[in-house]
Amino acid sequence: MFDFTFHNPTKIIFGAGKEAMIGEELNAAGITNILLVYGRNSVVKSGLLDRVIASLKASDITCSQYGGVDSNPLLSHTRKGVDLAKRDKVEAILAVGGGSVLDESKAIAVGALSDTDVWDFFVGKEVTRALPVFTILTLAATGSEMNGNSVVTNAETRQKYNISSPHVYPKVSILNPELTHSVPLNYTAYSAVDAIAHVIEGYFTKEPGTHLQDRLVEGIIKTVIETTDLIMADPSHAQARASFMWTATLALNGLTPAGIGEFSFPNHMIEHALSAIYNIPHGAGLSIVMPAWMKWYVARNPSQFQRFAGEIFGLDSAVAGIAALEQWFVTIKSPVRLGEVKIPATDIEAIAENAEGLARQWGIGELYTRKTIAGILQLAV
Amino acid sequence: MFDFTFHNPTKIIFGAGKEAMIGEELNAAGITNILLVYGRNSVVKSGLLDRVIASLKASDITCSQYGGVDSNPLLSHTRKGVDLAKRDKVEAILAVGGGSVLDESKAIAVGALSDTDVWDFFVGKEVTRALPVFTILTLAATGSEMNGNSVVTNAETRQKYNISSPHVYPKVSILNPELTHSVPLNYTAYSAVDAIAHVIEGYFTKEPGTHLQDRLVEGIIKTVIETTDLIMADPSHAQARASFMWTATLALNGLTPAGIGEFSFPNHMIEHALSAIYNIPHGAGLSIVMPAWMKWYVARNPSQFQRFAGEIFGLDSAVAGIAALEQWFVTIKSPVRLGEVKIPATDIEAIAENAEGLARQWGIGELYTRKTIAGILQLAV
Repeated sequence: MFDFTFHNPTKIIFGAGKEAMIGEELNAAGITNILLVYGRNSVVKSGLLDRVIASLKASDITCSQYGGVDSNPLLSHTRKGVDLAKRDKVEAILAVGGGSVLDESKAIAVGALSDTDVWDFFVGKEVTRALPVFTILTLAATGSEMNGNSVVTNAETRQKYNISSPHVYPKVSILNPELTHSVPLNYTAYSAVDAIAHVIEGYFTKEPGTHLQDRLVEGIIKTVIETTDLIMADPSHAQARASFMWTATLALNGLTPAGIGEFSFPNHMIEHALSAIYNIPHGAGLSIVMPAWMKWYVARNPSQFQRFAGEIFGLDSAVAGIAALEQWFVTIKSPVRLGEVKIPATDIEAIAENAEGLARQWGIGELYTRKTIAGILQLAV
Repeated sequence: MFDFTFHNPTKIIFGAGKEAMIGEELNAAGITNILLVYGRNSVVKSGLLDRVIASLKASDITCSQYGGVDSNPLLSHTRKGVDLAKRDKVEAILAVGGGSVLDESKAIAVGALSDTDVWDFFVGKEVTRALPVFTILTLAATGSEMNGNSVVTNAETRQKYNISSPHVYPKVSILNPELTHSVPLNYTAYSAVDAIAHVIEGYFTKEPGTHLQDRLVEGIIKTVIETTDLIMADPSHAQARASFMWTATLALNGLTPAGIGEFSFPNHMIEHALSAIYNIPHGAGLSIVMPAWMKWYVARNPSQFQRFAGEIFGLDSAVAGIAALEQWFVTIKSPVRLGEVKIPATDIEAIAENAEGLARQWGIGELYTRKTIAGILQLAV
């Protein structure tokens, strides 16, 4: 165990139909005028947006609507959202959607209280304040509903960068697992990969000796696998969808890394470079990167990989554990090779060059040079 | 999974020497005058109180000191604390000690803002406000450092009752695991029992189908057993003491019950009756009650007891799992029979009578009648 501070003040309201409480929650916080951010038309077609707006009206809350958030949210769209938030003098941002909508909403919340360009905060400027963020989640995956992270892509510079600040933890996040029943199985698979990726980074790259955190991670991974298998067999399996949703939240709410000391996010670093260039789903990129990274990294931490194999799959060798995880990704139809998402091996150098910049930004440039990253990606050809 | 609201806003600052940050944290909250509550002389002798006061002085915070909290905090002492807090017009309560000091401090925080007797809140009056509570923890066990519970004993009526309110979550809790190195091994054992008791109540009495919560509970129990064994062999085992401390916090911070629906606290209910009458350590009472309760309850939920046996001890029968837990209590020298704490079997009727009142208060009076409770206690003779 290492020193840590844990402070996660987000209030979670979990259950069917709970989006009807949003007006009440905003009222309780003294908020009367908001920017409602969403993505594609699915939330309109499903009737969710109407239900949300009805709840706002019932609580006398005025709102400006801002749709069109991309699945990898773009800086250009974020900037327009910031302008809108300023123009309409909103007091809070309400995100209705998946992780990308939540991430862009957090960025808008920061930009709305700043005189400088919002991208500044992604390249080093400290976040000192933000409008309060409220969320209604429609896709379980990123954990953004209960953390202080936001990832946005600058299409001009091909940079997928993030901010991390206590000021952008959502005040209230409403999780209605029924909203996820219609999530297509391929996106459910990507979400499962994403949740696993969130917890294995710390698990494999930290120092040993953190008993509880290892157990928490193993519990999360086992639950993700168990519930995803149930969902694949029955996409409307209510218990599995609900457990999956809450598990994805806990996979990146600060709980599993609390006390584990220094660790790194190499898989996310490489994947961010991939999806900055190719606009593939984040989870699909991760299921390609993870097995490759594990095959390369296993020699650096063999005992933890051995433990992983035993605890998760009941297997007795590190290599067998990695193979079992890769095979599970295949079973749920998430890609494990670059060719499956039509990325040619000849592009590896360009990806590695992009990733190298991130590696330096994330403080792991010494281990993850362009050459190392290219070598890892070669294992995914 | 069932609907739930999870909102735990306590900030945890974990690490060696972190008590030195208390002045700063109070300052950041705009607090200038506090009541410092503690228990016996150990915090004076160890120098902890001096270090805390030095931190307060450095931040220009004035404080009134109030020591003498009992290990089962008493209403009479709590009432005097309320008077003191009112007299000195303090803006916050700072608890320095174990769970009992924290619990009494929360009660004082409630009473200080009320015109009526503080006991009213333990027998049904709703808590609507409280002074902010800050804590520096010296004993890992009760989880009071990160929850909204407070247990106080009314010696006149022999009632050990509790309040549970969002208003008494500590604002900041400082956890320095080094402060627990000197905790005697018997009290360490009682704390281990207590942490296990906190998570098994929900685990065994809820409905099935909550994948993640089962895994979290199993991870907590396995970590408690693993780290307690290390501490028994080496009381200054820094990693084990630290892991144990954080595990005890998570065992009762609202995480494991979130989403499990209705469940009950029968072991705590019976133990509260025991320690209300005999003033034995809470954990010692629990290690007597739990195996007895399990032997009685196993027939009502055999599959979960079977799972418990397999996941925790690698055993294949429910009965063997209960026996293994009881044997582990024996190994760490926590009592498992009433005779070990000198409670004669002839007292069982009186204990059951006391527990019956609690059972009704906690809404489980239908299942836990005086006769049922006496029957369970007979299994601990």
